[in-house]
Amino acid sequence: MAEVEFLQSYDPAAYERPSVTVDLVLMGVRDGNPTALLLQRQQHPHAGRWALPGGFVGIDEDLDDAATRVLRAKAGIASAHLEQLYTFGAPNRDPRTRIITVAYLVLLPEPALAAALKAAPALFPASLMLAGSSEEESPITALSPDSEPLPLAFDHGNILALALQRLRGKIDYSEVGFALLPELFTLRQLQDVHEAIRGTTLNKPAFRRRMLDRGWLAPTGARETDTSHRPAELFRYRKPL
Amino acid sequence: MAEVEFLQSYDPAAYERPSVTVDLVLMGVRDGNPTALLLQRQQHPHAGRWALPGGFVGIDEDLDDAATRVLRAKAGIASAHLEQLYTFGAPNRDPRTRIITVAYLVLLPEPALAAALKAAPALFPASLMLAGSSEEESPITALSPDSEPLPLAFDHGNILALALQRLRGKIDYSEVGFALLPELFTLRQLQDVHEAIRGTTLNKPAFRRRMLDRGWLAPTGARETDTSHRPAELFRYRKPL
Repeated sequence: MAEVEFLQSYDPAAYERPSVTVDLVLMGVRDGNPTALLLQRQQHPHAGRWALPGGFVGIDEDLDDAATRVLRAKAGIASAHLEQLYTFGAPNRDPRTRIITVAYLVLLPEPALAAALKAAPALFPASLMLAGSSEEESPITALSPDSEPLPLAFDHGNILALALQRLRGKIDYSEVGFALLPELFTLRQLQDVHEAIRGTTLNKPAFRRRMLDRGWLAPTGARETDTSHRPAELFRYRKPL
Repeated sequence: MAEVEFLQSYDPAAYERPSVTVDLVLMGVRDGNPTALLLQRQQHPHAGRWALPGGFVGIDEDLDDAATRVLRAKAGIASAHLEQLYTFGAPNRDPRTRIITVAYLVLLPEPALAAALKAAPALFPASLMLAGSSEEESPITALSPDSEPLPLAFDHGNILALALQRLRGKIDYSEVGFALLPELFTLRQLQDVHEAIRGTTLNKPAFRRRMLDRGWLAPTGARETDTSHRPAELFRYRKPL
C-alpha cells in the first residue's frame, strides 16, 4: 500500500524524460514484391544507411497527428490507411539519446506509391524479403531495384519485419489488403497483392471462392481497358453488412 | 530534400520531451466475466477513480522491462503472458503534463488472478462489459463485485476497451486463450473462457471440434478431482507442429 501511494503521488517532472518519435513504414506492392519507401540518412548517426521516414512528436501533438504530419511532409501523401504498429523502446536503439519510437504502418496502393516517389524524390523503393516465419526478431532484407541489399539504420529492420509479419498474419482474414489496391481492381490484382504479402503462391479457384464468400467484393460490371488479353471484370471493395 | 536533411540533423534534445509510462491491463476470467485488476487512485489527479496499475519508464529501461517491473511491484507477479497492446498519447490525457503511455496486456489464469489479489490487497477485480462491437472508442463499463459501476481514471476506459476487443478478436484463431487457463483444464473450462471473452454462448460440439482440429489440445489421460458430477478429462495446451 505504502509503495502504491508513493508512486501515485510521484511528480512526473522528477523523471528524466525520453524523446519520442514516430516512424512510418510506407508499404505497398511493386512488381510483385512487398515494398517499403526508405530514405538514405545524410547525417550522423548511421549516415548512408537506409531509414524509415520519421520525426519527433510535438509536445502538444497527438501521436496519430504526428504520423499524419510526417506522412505529408516526407512523402507528400495527404491521406492513406494508417495504423499504429508497435512501440520500439530499447534503451540503446539510437546512439544520440533515449528515443522511443511509435511505429506506424501506412498502406499504399500502387498509384499512391508511384505518386509518393514522384512527390518526394528522396524516397527510395526497397523490396522486402522476410527470412524465417514467426520468429520474434525475423531478419528482413531490403533490396534496391538492382537487388543490392540496403543496409538499414537503427532498429528499422526489426520495424520493417514486424510490419510485414503483421500484414502477412492478417491479410487473409481481414479487409486490410484492399488498402493496397486501387479503388477498382481485378481478381488477378487482388491475388497478386495477397501473394506478394504472404510470400507464397495461392490456388486461384480456392482464393477467389474465399474472397467472394467473405462478401468483400462488389462486381462493378465494368472491365479493364488497355489490355492485350481478354479484359477482366473490375471489382470494388464492399464493407460486409 | 532540404527539409529532409534539416529534420535528420535536428538535435533531439532541442525538443521538449514528454513523460512515458507503461500501464498494465491485468486481465483474467472470473465467475464467467472478463475481469481486470484496478487500483483506486488516492491522489490528484482523478483521486477516487479507478486506474490501471502503471509506472514511469526509466530513462535506461526497456519498455518490456518496465512492464515486468510494474507487474512485480504492483501485483506481486513474477511472470505471465505479457504483450504490448497499444500506445496512447492524446495530448490532454493526463492533466499534470504530457504523458504518453505504452499499454500492455497481461493475461492471468484464475489461480494467478486470485494470487495477485492476495499479494496486492489494493488491487480490485472489476468485471468488464463492452458496449458496441467494433467501434473505435467502444465504451466499456467496469463493475464492482456488487455490480456497481466503477468510475475510471484518465483514458483507462479506452485502454480496457481495446484490450478486451483485441482479445475478443483473436481468441478464436490464436493460442492466446490458453494463457487464461491453468496448465491442466477441462474442455468446459476452455469453453467458459472463450465465452466470457467473446461475450457470447458457443455451440459445444462445434467449439470442441474446432479446438481439437487446431491441434492445440493434448489429452493427459487424467481427470479432474473434487467434482460432484462425473469428472471430465483434463487437457493441456500443446504447440502445434
